Amino acid sequence: MDSKAEKQAPSGKTAGKPIRCRAAVARKAGEPLVIEEVIVAPPKSHEVRVKIICTSLCHSDIFFWKLQQFPGCFPRILGHEAFGIVESVGEDVEDFKEGDSVVPIFLPDCTECLDCKSKKSNLCTKFPFRASPLLHRDETSRFTDLKGEALHHFLFVSSFSQYTVIDIANVTKIDPSIPPNRACLLSCGVSTGVGAAIRSANVEPGSTVAIFGLGSIGLAVAEGARLCGAARIIGVDINPDKFERGKTFGVSDFVNSLTIGDKSVSQVICEMTGGGADYCFECVGQATLVQEAYASCRKAWGKTVVLGVDQPGKQVSLSSFEVLHSGKTLTGSLFGGLKPKSDIPILAKRYTDGELQLDKFVTHEVGFEDINKAFDLLIQGKSLRCVIWMDK
Amino acid sequence: MDSKAEKQAPSGKTAGKPIRCRAAVARKAGEPLVIEEVIVAPPKSHEVRVKIICTSLCHSDIFFWKLQQFPGCFPRILGHEAFGIVESVGEDVEDFKEGDSVVPIFLPDCTECLDCKSKKSNLCTKFPFRASPLLHRDETSRFTDLKGEALHHFLFVSSFSQYTVIDIANVTKIDPSIPPNRACLLSCGVSTGVGAAIRSANVEPGSTVAIFGLGSIGLAVAEGARLCGAARIIGVDINPDKFERGKTFGVSDFVNSLTIGDKSVSQVICEMTGGGADYCFECVGQATLVQEAYASCRKAWGKTVVLGVDQPGKQVSLSSFEVLHSGKTLTGSLFGGLKPKSDIPILAKRYTDGELQLDKFVTHEVGFEDINKAFDLLIQGKSLRCVIWMDK
Repeated sequence: MDSKAEKQAPSGKTAGKPIRCRAAVARKAGEPLVIEEVIVAPPKSHEVRVKIICTSLCHSDIFFWKLQQFPGCFPRILGHEAFGIVESVGEDVEDFKEGDSVVPIFLPDCTECLDCKSKKSNLCTKFPFRASPLLHRDETSRFTDLKGEALHHFLFVSSFSQYTVIDIANVTKIDPSIPPNRACLLSCGVSTGVGAAIRSANVEPGSTVAIFGLGSIGLAVAEGARLCGAARIIGVDINPDKFERGKTFGVSDFVNSLTIGDKSVSQVICEMTGGGADYCFECVGQATLVQEAYASCRKAWGKTVVLGVDQPGKQVSLSSFEVLHSGKTLTGSLFGGLKPKSDIPILAKRYTDGELQLDKFVTHEVGFEDINKAFDLLIQGKSLRCVIWMDK
Repeated sequence: MDSKAEKQAPSGKTAGKPIRCRAAVARKAGEPLVIEEVIVAPPKSHEVRVKIICTSLCHSDIFFWKLQQFPGCFPRILGHEAFGIVESVGEDVEDFKEGDSVVPIFLPDCTECLDCKSKKSNLCTKFPFRASPLLHRDETSRFTDLKGEALHHFLFVSSFSQYTVIDIANVTKIDPSIPPNRACLLSCGVSTGVGAAIRSANVEPGSTVAIFGLGSIGLAVAEGARLCGAARIIGVDINPDKFERGKTFGVSDFVNSLTIGDKSVSQVICEMTGGGADYCFECVGQATLVQEAYASCRKAWGKTVVLGVDQPGKQVSLSSFEVLHSGKTLTGSLFGGLKPKSDIPILAKRYTDGELQLDKFVTHEVGFEDINKAFDLLIQGKSLRCVIWMDK
């Protein structure tokens, strides 16, 4: 894989004009994506058009690909973890120029509102996070198919297209020396997990961590906890293969929730730890598992961080008595509590400094034509991150 | 009220002998207390016998007085907010001596376990908090009635008796210059509310606070928030008289949940604050109100602290989506997160320094014979704290 060739800057000849390119379009919920030619309009004010070099597949793509009801909607160009090069910029864009190496980010960061200016928040008020099918500012799409039908955006990114248009609130520059198939991981999943440990939970050195679900997000939590100096990292999953994989990222103990008999996971963890883990992370997206994570947390200072996305309408139910008497804390973490524009460069530096392990998250790489294989691999639990190269 | 006379040290003649004195005994759930003579055994190892000078009535006394099922139990000597003088000490007691001014505390503080040594916890592991009817170490009672029947203890304190025996984990020394009818307030309610603001929530200067329930605990939260420099303190109650009372403690806005029409309290608070309060405190003890408090909290950094005691079995139900996407925090606070032995002296000093307002929490004072009046006043919402003087 010659990453230099992949990162050649666009020629500049396309600026201001529509670009015809290939995209993988989700036409119906749960049906294989269709690679077809689409028209990508030039960026408008506060937007950049990005040549996507590679994209990786995240569970949220699959979640929305299957979702028949709104905010699921079709036809749509999914994809939100990626690395790309700015092809052209719209009006009122000062911070980006043609040729910049960038990663898109699903979580807006306007840099101007109270939240974006605060160290305590990563939830932009000017452009609230939502699974919008359109861009922020004018609520329109930049994609049309060859029949002239508008195609929906996804999470303000839509990286399953060779070119996409992104609001400047949803893109950040990144060190161009980082290989594209590593940089793209910082766009969502790995950052979310690592961030949840280092930012949302602020894991203390020497502490005990329990992670529910050892997919990419869960393993990224382990990686974050490892970087924080956690003494013990307990992984919970139903697939014992995940434990072997997890050891790379610091997972020291494994609980297979299918083989613990009559005990609950929380009973097992409380016994293992003498009263509960200092930090518990729910990375599966099941409200009932949040309750189990909460029960696995140590009294007084135990903190449960919710990262998983459950179906709309699901409720987390906690005993009122336990909430009061245990003193435990429950919180949620979108993008790991990271501020996209300021924190992604920090993680990038920790990668180039050899601290943050990104390489082992990439278990598969495919060409764009094989994007549906990437779906199969993730659904079957075979991949952590499958990188999809757009020009292969 | 001549507080010096009240604080005369015991003579020392009673040490090692049973003491016959008056106590207000709860014989049946919900029935008026009966003042009768009881026998108080000498303190055993790690215990002190305390002459109670005055006690004040807290909602938890009423909660357990009404509770027919365990941990409600009868006959019992209730009461847990008090001030007293050590009459004698048992074996292995080094930190207390006859004549010491003390306040009992329902929350044990052994000073030796991991939790008691940690700054992050006030939940002793050696002696876990529980509504035990007996003392910690040997699970027996020090009270008998004149028929020889054992009387149950309450929250390790049982201050509705002229003398009581308390484990040294449940008592702390206090500056003897503080009047008894102020010192007793630090024993539970006021400390709990003030602590929840200054310790559990750590309210930031300039922030906005919403308090659900303006009883003593809620007003003590307001007092704590005021001391922290909160810019706006919103009180929520169904009794508009509470607002007038609340102004003393810094309550700046009032929401009467009975007169807001079709809107929910959280809608009103989110509108008032432009997105929610920075800190919300549930001081009533209703799981559904915890949900409303959580909904009234600002995204990202909003923190909901649960102080109220609901019936056993009640569940706090939160939207899984909101937990993840809002980034809000939910936590519980027993005794306001304060460490009894180290934090009560700090609050006492803030009182003597003129910072912490204790005086206005005392709305009524009665003699011991009138203890049932104190119950009526609190149940009817007429009193904040009614001080009961044991020798009058």
